[in-house]
Amino acid sequence: MAEEISVSTVQQVIEFLGTFAFAISGIRHAAAKHFDWFGGYVCGIAVAIGGGTIRDVMLGAIPFWMTTPVYMICTAMALLVVIVFSKYMERLSNTWFVFDTLGLALFTIAGIQKSLDYSQPFWVAITMGCITGAAGGVIRDILLNNEPVIFRKEIYAMACFLGGSVYWLLAYLSMPVEITVIVSFTVTCLIRFLAVKYHLSLPVLKGIDNDDSK
Amino acid sequence: MAEEISVSTVQQVIEFLGTFAFAISGIRHAAAKHFDWFGGYVCGIAVAIGGGTIRDVMLGAIPFWMTTPVYMICTAMALLVVIVFSKYMERLSNTWFVFDTLGLALFTIAGIQKSLDYSQPFWVAITMGCITGAAGGVIRDILLNNEPVIFRKEIYAMACFLGGSVYWLLAYLSMPVEITVIVSFTVTCLIRFLAVKYHLSLPVLKGIDNDDSK
Amino acid sequence: MAEEISVSTVQQVIEFLGTFAFAISGIRHAAAKHFDWFGGYVCGIAVAIGGGTIRDVMLGAIPFWMTTPVYMICTAMALLVVIVFSKYMERLSNTWFVFDTLGLALFTIAGIQKSLDYSQPFWVAITMGCITGAAGGVIRDILLNNEPVIFRKEIYAMACFLGGSVYWLLAYLSMPVEITVIVSFTVTCLIRFLAVKYHLSLPVLKGIDNDDSK
Repeated sequence: MAEEISVSTVQQVIEFLGTFAFAISGIRHAAAKHFDWFGGYVCGIAVAIGGGTIRDVMLGAIPFWMTTPVYMICTAMALLVVIVFSKYMERLSNTWFVFDTLGLALFTIAGIQKSLDYSQPFWVAITMGCITGAAGGVIRDILLNNEPVIFRKEIYAMACFLGGSVYWLLAYLSMPVEITVIVSFTVTCLIRFLAVKYHLSLPVLKGIDNDDSK
Repeated sequence: MAEEISVSTVQQVIEFLGTFAFAISGIRHAAAKHFDWFGGYVCGIAVAIGGGTIRDVMLGAIPFWMTTPVYMICTAMALLVVIVFSKYMERLSNTWFVFDTLGLALFTIAGIQKSLDYSQPFWVAITMGCITGAAGGVIRDILLNNEPVIFRKEIYAMACFLGGSVYWLLAYLSMPVEITVIVSFTVTCLIRFLAVKYHLSLPVLKGIDNDDSK
Repeated sequence: MAEEISVSTVQQVIEFLGTFAFAISGIRHAAAKHFDWFGGYVCGIAVAIGGGTIRDVMLGAIPFWMTTPVYMICTAMALLVVIVFSKYMERLSNTWFVFDTLGLALFTIAGIQKSLDYSQPFWVAITMGCITGAAGGVIRDILLNNEPVIFRKEIYAMACFLGGSVYWLLAYLSMPVEITVIVSFTVTCLIRFLAVKYHLSLPVLKGIDNDDSK
């Protein structure tokens, strides 16, 4: 019992740190474009809850952030931190990166589990895991009028996809859910860390002269 | 009874004028980018119904514009007006601004009330009020490939937020709903007018060199 | 019976070719921006399923692509084709254009029929038909950080609209559904072909100096 509480607490702490890091990412990108506080808040919340909201709308569920104010409060705290400690943000880059990666892995697993709870097949669940982890950053880039960075830079969404596939494999092998979660979590984090450390990225599509026929 | 009809009629007239002004805003921005008539119509409808549609999808409701054709017809009329009277649009800027502000205030209140009807807590309702009022303009800017103007310019969404907060405060104090609506409506309009008149805006986030680590 | 199977098979073949052509369109545009394989896949899937997903979310239905993996597999095949045969893509432009037009017409009709199945009135059904056919391309352009091409170029969404109106007219005249589908399909294809052949486009909105008051 004590251990169960502890696992759940660990999960909540990671989720809070992940949400915080996602929000920080949105607000910092907004700051780079000289948005005002409100614009920063919207970009922060978009990264923090955007992916999960798309997932929930497609699953036919009420978006998760509407059931508890913690995500909006967490984003407000992130905004405050960026405003007050703007000078130190650069130095903390590695911290945000670690939080962000933990959040990515946890959000992916949360997306998979919620989809399975809604009786979706595994290929849908993995897709929803990727959307939960990576779609928020795409919405941020759209709001900022940038090209989505995950379509060009080192492996990001692929980490979700591979971590999700490991989840499926272990579940298929009837492993206990705790093992499944921990291994899948670790794989996602590891791929992300290695991708950034060694600048791993997917091959680029060969630019074809675009005829714009459509 | 007579008064009730009159209040409801006033509300319908304001809603029509607001929708019209929102559609005009979308179509004029499309014209500035030399879109064709169809592009103008889509941008117009996006501003007029975009925010309310996002709200309804998140609430699990059928989007409001699917229950009556009045919003699509209203946008078609706005398109016709922009095409026929394009020379006079500039001169009417203040008129559109007034309509737009009335619409903003009314849409915010409509968003709050619909959310409360769906048993949402007040902090969700205020968020939905802001989305109903302000998200259409963001969609317009995304369609036009512009940076969303409300993330930079004078106070716009904050007027929704403050008007919505007043709504909550008065409801909390058990004021009659008519008073609550009228005061909240007035506050939203007033803030918007003052913001434009005195160029009030939120502080800008300090541009941090973006490390693009995410 | 045999004929019914045959009609349904024809429909499935057209749907597959249409999905394939839509996916190819997304991936080629992504290639023109030097996206990586993942970015190409996302742009491809966005064109292939984006419009139908928006339709389904607004109708309150589970998005169609979550019920069968065929759309995601079809997009993966399209990605493979673009990667392997990138040299020959240009030469096949006319093939993709034909597939794309067939897909456009079929998707429009599918959108109309699904909306009617959900007891929506005809003006909603036609709107949903246009969204099913044309919204995927708009999402693609947003992801690519381009101005949506259908707001400027030759008639595209109008083909959906006119084909959908023909569907409504024939249904109103109580024509058998097979005739209705075939005529509406033919009209949509014909308008699209003629629009490209003769560079037909809608009039452009007169650029008004934008006061940015909203």
